[in-house]
Amino acid sequence: MSITRIDPAARWSEAVVHNGVVYYTSVPANLVADAYEQTKSTLAEIDAMLARVNSDKSMILDATIFLVNKEDFQAMNKAWDEWVVAGSAPVRCTVHSGLMKDSYKVEIKIVAAVKG
Amino acid sequence: MSITRIDPAARWSEAVVHNGVVYYTSVPANLVADAYEQTKSTLAEIDAMLARVNSDKSMILDATIFLVNKEDFQAMNKAWDEWVVAGSAPVRCTVHSGLMKDSYKVEIKIVAAVKG
Amino acid sequence: MSITRIDPAARWSEAVVHNGVVYYTSVPANLVADAYEQTKSTLAEIDAMLARVNSDKSMILDATIFLVNKEDFQAMNKAWDEWVVAGSAPVRCTVHSGLMKDSYKVEIKIVAAVKG
Repeated sequence: MSITRIDPAARWSEAVVHNGVVYYTSVPANLVADAYEQTKSTLAEIDAMLARVNSDKSMILDATIFLVNKEDFQAMNKAWDEWVVAGSAPVRCTVHSGLMKDSYKVEIKIVAAVKG
Repeated sequence: MSITRIDPAARWSEAVVHNGVVYYTSVPANLVADAYEQTKSTLAEIDAMLARVNSDKSMILDATIFLVNKEDFQAMNKAWDEWVVAGSAPVRCTVHSGLMKDSYKVEIKIVAAVKG
Repeated sequence: MSITRIDPAARWSEAVVHNGVVYYTSVPANLVADAYEQTKSTLAEIDAMLARVNSDKSMILDATIFLVNKEDFQAMNKAWDEWVVAGSAPVRCTVHSGLMKDSYKVEIKIVAAVKG
């Protein structure tokens, strides 16, 4: 079974596809925004990556959300609820933990199925 | 490869099956209990979910345990050791981090194989 | 699809192979060392395990790094950068969270493809 790496850099690849599944960790692009906007941005990055690997948000299997500030839970959920495909939502687990960039309020790790 | 979602709700699905594997995150049902009882409850939820998707605890591949209080490690392990199938235990990683509900002391994320 | 457990113990298995994929969580062997040396050790353990299951570091799909001290990020990255196969790097996510052994500064969870 082949391994397809998306935007492979020296330190990491943006996404990796193997055996009908894509692995991806999404981070916000708008680092000055609040948790709602950062989550929206992080989810938009997921949409963009899934489109590149012949998948979409209705095919996400599992999501782990790392949230830096617990009080951002509602703001994160608001962005999530506006975005997620009801009825095709993934398993979801939200963990309260720190991230490496001080400007990140959220980071979302997913496993998704790919078409074909 | 088809995707089967168990109890799909607006925000998340309880479990998702794809390509012979089930993804699931279990949380305790008894929120007033101590870490031992909460872990027992979380593991019982795993048993119940795995039974629904034609799997069982001897087929768990990987487990990530999120533990809110480090001093609960022994209590969590006691419940785990009483439950796990010796010789068929999964890979296990225990992380000390916060969770979203103040009443949760533990949350367990698993990947398991399903039969057939 | 069969499940192969590597070094199955009562509480966990060191690694588990299923459907062309190996699950593994690596911990440092040299517990008195600094974060650079601990990460080197943790990565060497990954190499050793992957060799046992007919895989290698160029086949890692996804890595989650749990780092206890945020200020160790650079030291961890130095060991990582010296080790990772540029162009075949996995998806990578680094989370700042506690671990169960006080002597652990880092723990690395991976999913990798196996040959054949």
